[in-house]
Amino acid sequence: MKWVNVLGGIVGAAALLGLGIILGHFAIPKGTNSQHLQDLDLEILESIMQQLDASRIRENLRELSREPHLASSPQDEALVQLLLQRWRDPESGLDSAEASTYEVLLSFPSREQPNRVAVVSPTGNVLFSCRQSEQNLTGEQGGPDVVPPYAAYAPPGTPQGLLVYANQGTEEDFMKLQAQGIKLEGTIALTRYGGTGRGAKAVNAAKHGVAGVLVYTDPADINDGQSSTNETFPNSWRLPPSGVERGSYYEYFGDPLTPYLPANPSSFRLDPDTVSGFPPIPTQPIGFEDAKILLCQVNVSVYNRLELRNSSNVLGIIRGAVEPDRYVLYGNHRDSWVHGAVDPSSGTAVLLELSRVLGTLLKKGTWRPRRSIVFASWGAEEFGLIGSTEFTEEFFSKLQERAVAYINVDISVFANATLRAQGTPPVQSVIFAASKQIPAPSLGGLSIYDNWIRYFNRSSPVYGLVPSLGSLGAGSDYAPFIHFLGISSMDIAYTYDRSKTSARIYPTYHTAFDTFGYVDKFVDPGFSSHQAVARTAGSVLLRLSDSLFLPLNVSDYGETLRSFLQAAQQNLGVLLEQHSISLVPLVTAVEKFEGAAGALDQRISALQKATPDPLQVRMLNDQLMLLERTFLNPRAFPEERYYSHVLWAPRTGSVATFPGLANACSRAMNTSLGSPAWAEVQRQLSILVVALEGAAATLRPVADF
Amino acid sequence: MKWVNVLGGIVGAAALLGLGIILGHFAIPKGTNSQHLQDLDLEILESIMQQLDASRIRENLRELSREPHLASSPQDEALVQLLLQRWRDPESGLDSAEASTYEVLLSFPSREQPNRVAVVSPTGNVLFSCRQSEQNLTGEQGGPDVVPPYAAYAPPGTPQGLLVYANQGTEEDFMKLQAQGIKLEGTIALTRYGGTGRGAKAVNAAKHGVAGVLVYTDPADINDGQSSTNETFPNSWRLPPSGVERGSYYEYFGDPLTPYLPANPSSFRLDPDTVSGFPPIPTQPIGFEDAKILLCQVNVSVYNRLELRNSSNVLGIIRGAVEPDRYVLYGNHRDSWVHGAVDPSSGTAVLLELSRVLGTLLKKGTWRPRRSIVFASWGAEEFGLIGSTEFTEEFFSKLQERAVAYINVDISVFANATLRAQGTPPVQSVIFAASKQIPAPSLGGLSIYDNWIRYFNRSSPVYGLVPSLGSLGAGSDYAPFIHFLGISSMDIAYTYDRSKTSARIYPTYHTAFDTFGYVDKFVDPGFSSHQAVARTAGSVLLRLSDSLFLPLNVSDYGETLRSFLQAAQQNLGVLLEQHSISLVPLVTAVEKFEGAAGALDQRISALQKATPDPLQVRMLNDQLMLLERTFLNPRAFPEERYYSHVLWAPRTGSVATFPGLANACSRAMNTSLGSPAWAEVQRQLSILVVALEGAAATLRPVADF
Repeated sequence: MKWVNVLGGIVGAAALLGLGIILGHFAIPKGTNSQHLQDLDLEILESIMQQLDASRIRENLRELSREPHLASSPQDEALVQLLLQRWRDPESGLDSAEASTYEVLLSFPSREQPNRVAVVSPTGNVLFSCRQSEQNLTGEQGGPDVVPPYAAYAPPGTPQGLLVYANQGTEEDFMKLQAQGIKLEGTIALTRYGGTGRGAKAVNAAKHGVAGVLVYTDPADINDGQSSTNETFPNSWRLPPSGVERGSYYEYFGDPLTPYLPANPSSFRLDPDTVSGFPPIPTQPIGFEDAKILLCQVNVSVYNRLELRNSSNVLGIIRGAVEPDRYVLYGNHRDSWVHGAVDPSSGTAVLLELSRVLGTLLKKGTWRPRRSIVFASWGAEEFGLIGSTEFTEEFFSKLQERAVAYINVDISVFANATLRAQGTPPVQSVIFAASKQIPAPSLGGLSIYDNWIRYFNRSSPVYGLVPSLGSLGAGSDYAPFIHFLGISSMDIAYTYDRSKTSARIYPTYHTAFDTFGYVDKFVDPGFSSHQAVARTAGSVLLRLSDSLFLPLNVSDYGETLRSFLQAAQQNLGVLLEQHSISLVPLVTAVEKFEGAAGALDQRISALQKATPDPLQVRMLNDQLMLLERTFLNPRAFPEERYYSHVLWAPRTGSVATFPGLANACSRAMNTSLGSPAWAEVQRQLSILVVALEGAAATLRPVADF
Repeated sequence: MKWVNVLGGIVGAAALLGLGIILGHFAIPKGTNSQHLQDLDLEILESIMQQLDASRIRENLRELSREPHLASSPQDEALVQLLLQRWRDPESGLDSAEASTYEVLLSFPSREQPNRVAVVSPTGNVLFSCRQSEQNLTGEQGGPDVVPPYAAYAPPGTPQGLLVYANQGTEEDFMKLQAQGIKLEGTIALTRYGGTGRGAKAVNAAKHGVAGVLVYTDPADINDGQSSTNETFPNSWRLPPSGVERGSYYEYFGDPLTPYLPANPSSFRLDPDTVSGFPPIPTQPIGFEDAKILLCQVNVSVYNRLELRNSSNVLGIIRGAVEPDRYVLYGNHRDSWVHGAVDPSSGTAVLLELSRVLGTLLKKGTWRPRRSIVFASWGAEEFGLIGSTEFTEEFFSKLQERAVAYINVDISVFANATLRAQGTPPVQSVIFAASKQIPAPSLGGLSIYDNWIRYFNRSSPVYGLVPSLGSLGAGSDYAPFIHFLGISSMDIAYTYDRSKTSARIYPTYHTAFDTFGYVDKFVDPGFSSHQAVARTAGSVLLRLSDSLFLPLNVSDYGETLRSFLQAAQQNLGVLLEQHSISLVPLVTAVEKFEGAAGALDQRISALQKATPDPLQVRMLNDQLMLLERTFLNPRAFPEERYYSHVLWAPRTGSVATFPGLANACSRAMNTSLGSPAWAEVQRQLSILVVALEGAAATLRPVADF
């Protein structure tokens, strides 16, 4: 062999080896690295959408609502077992599932001494007694497990007095009566549901010396005025005359004896006699059938009892493949007042179908999300969001460190017209993205989004016409997540065409008529709206748990801040100026937020175009995740239990603006310059400015301290 | 060419190519990946240790303490410019440096009406007047920039009354006087420094009707009993007879007008007349020279004034190469009462030398830390940790999200005997590691650690004999970091041989005699102790900012919790049992913490042995960083401003145990069963249990929700 050949061979071999090294290094991604970049897989998402099955949701609902399952009842406990069994199923279960139990203070009517409302003669003879239970119309309204209508946490007592009709029992209503010269002292106030919270009616009444309160459901508010037997259930979805809305009359949420502490058996408990937030006087709900008969002297006998009971949450976990320490939570309560087919089983039926489909993929090994998913079935929500609140109290630190978002689907279908979503601004875009990809039921391919925008919409300065997202009050289990922990939250459901009904809520709400048959026949025959909610919430869940970049659009908060600011300027500007309080620092803070959020959007876009570095993505996602936390200030509203979010605390006025500022202004309005109330206005303004500046700081490039 | 040869050639070529691919893929780390694994470089660390120069620290100190630089004075402002210049130096500066200014309420004596303490005859003639300034012994104690001795925040007033000696002015001291039948009403109390906080003396006195308070420094407490001119400065380090300790008499910390809010010009401010925490009666500090002369009727004239002043922090940043969103903070205050050579310039001199060495490496391009470093020079610490507190209020969210640790070096050298460190348990191991590698000054190669253990030590159940780390009170700027934000913090200094002096603190503390000459001649001639502190704190800083795995040993908290628990069982066990309060839930919680921390240690060891995955390391480091945060509960001690850390809040008793529980027990002790005080004991116990359970939850594997 010639040396030229040998040399050529060596050169060639070296070239090949070198080529190989180059290929090996650059062309084949490292295992860990490519796994770190795991992103949402649209094919898997679409396949999940297809697998979410309306008929299985229907079967879930049938099973969930077969028996009344009042919080802590044996039937409620049986559902805990059902959930555990589903979530531990070897073929469609999750990675793990556990029940955790709290010992909480609930309130029940006495079995031995039923509550009673009666009309009595001046001599004390009973002339008429209200029903003590609803009429058994379908065979499901009878039996020992149907709890008689009562006002949970209303104190026992047997007041007797003249009946006074007090409309909705607001402070204004009682003031009007007083202005008309009507003596309220010692009377029984008859009020109707709506206008204010349940417990607030009794609080307002007691301030005027009222001795007892009755609350009834008015056909005008719930049945579009219809009240006759043949126009109501079981002949339509309307509330029958004997239907009575039960409910919790507790003012706050969480276990009443353990505020800010999980209700573990060893936890410190307040003395029940000193608890604040219970109705101060005996209160009892009744049906409209009875309400119209009442007159003259009425006797109300309430024998409710407080009881310490065990109530469980059930948690099911899917471990994240890449970032197991980031949690996307999805939950609903499990307990109902009676059968609770709509409230809450329509949500739980959807939850179980979603967890089945995801669990099946998981067990087959075809899918595992980037982040962890935590499914939750909360206990004792009806008594005041108790299970979810205790959970947030117990896992306060961990959730604040790691929770990406909380998705709540309580009542999944109120009615069949349209999607309805509530949430904080960062979740708007992911709900929009999900709902654009899913067909609305029975509308020939129109997307859920395009249908939604026909019912609820607003003109956004940034996007033009978009569906309007509602804001989160404290109506379901999202409340402790958003208000106490500052976790971006949302609530998703299908709901009414408001041009067709003015019902305050679906008619059989919290009554014994909220049954499987009611849903199957009137609320969602075919369960296609249930399926639409399963798909929407499921797609949102997948996007949040699987996307490389968290789909939380923080700059959408800028739009909200700007609109709150404009409302403050318009509604409070003159008043503040009169008191030499300047909104300029607030204007500056809003501008800083907008600037920081806009720049962050640009950094995300740039990173998405380049090959993203997993640590850089993680840092950026941390900014997105933690933004909502920056709005928390546990010292902002010391008198508002749990409410720490400076943007979403309860507002007393009707203008959508900064709640702390607006409430402080309305309290200061009629006080003199230099009063403590005006100092509080200034304090609230500073709290707000600091929170917005802190939020902007969290969004700025992390290396610019 | 035969086909066999051709085939052989192809096979060979393929093998070579394949080998290349394998080598390229597995043998050469990807650029991003290897950068992600950037770890502490011991050679660079050693080189930094060598470059930290005692003579440069001496020059820094000379420059820093040349002029008196009371907070917000022109000289203080000049030092702001000096820091900015150093930190922006093109050859040894940092990535960026900025001053940020707050408008804060300070207190100064009046120039026009000097405060005065005089002995007067019954007819009102002045028989004797105390000095109004210290004796000018070195030419540095005179001039308009030396602020006369005063009690900052003491109210103006001119009380006159009989002098009563009240020892240290504790509650107990006044009770004793009362028990002896001494009438306190309308008197002037003469008290000595020590035993309780400065402001507390006036608070205690006022409760007994005392009209004014004098506070002097007793030679027994500060000079080991020596008091004559030739035994004191400038002939020794002892306090001269005319020396007076200045100080803030404000009870809380932070700007008094803006609690929980940064003192920006637009921030809401309390009405100064309604601020709590100021001394209730005129108070004035004096020297022992005068104290021994005082008797009979004394007139105290205090003309202090509150003033809103601008005070600046200076921040210097080194951007992290891999995790720029993780901040290791290192700070000291800048303001002094007079020249402040020891307090605080000895710390600032070290800070500037450390930032010079790191800045030089940075500008040369030889080093950039894994995480960001934030150097801070705080304003107005002497008035109540004001600059640092306002900083934590302004950047509350960002710091809670991202701060790894806070290193405080205030007075860097009290004396030359030994290192002294205070901190929370997670920082113990990194201080130990650093101090083991650095020689103690002038001890023939003995390490700082080995010298330290001779002076302060304890027997650890885990490690055997180790140096004892002190706990953090509120004596310097670490207070808002640990108590308000839950950031693992430490304070590092060189200090006394306690067998050689019983001085309460270095003798010229807060007097006009704390000058460069004093340090150069008496405190640390040669500046080797300054250098030792620079090396120790510098090594800790490097380890925290550069190590791949954060060197925070969370399981060391287990030892503290166990010892607190044992102390609670021994000291409170019987009392609690008598009131049917069980410590079992607390025992269980401590056990859970120990178990979770131990298991985490094992996971770290395992990960360190394998090739660590950068995201896994990040998740684990987040657990370590955030552990300290889990002990915060802003609702635990509503009356203790800023104190939210359930383990380190102020304790009234002397036993080292859980402060909330111990304080509540001592308040409940003499109340009856079922009192609100006993309910508070149970509440505190539950708060503690929940915090420890939350801490354990944060340490558990992140995928096990």
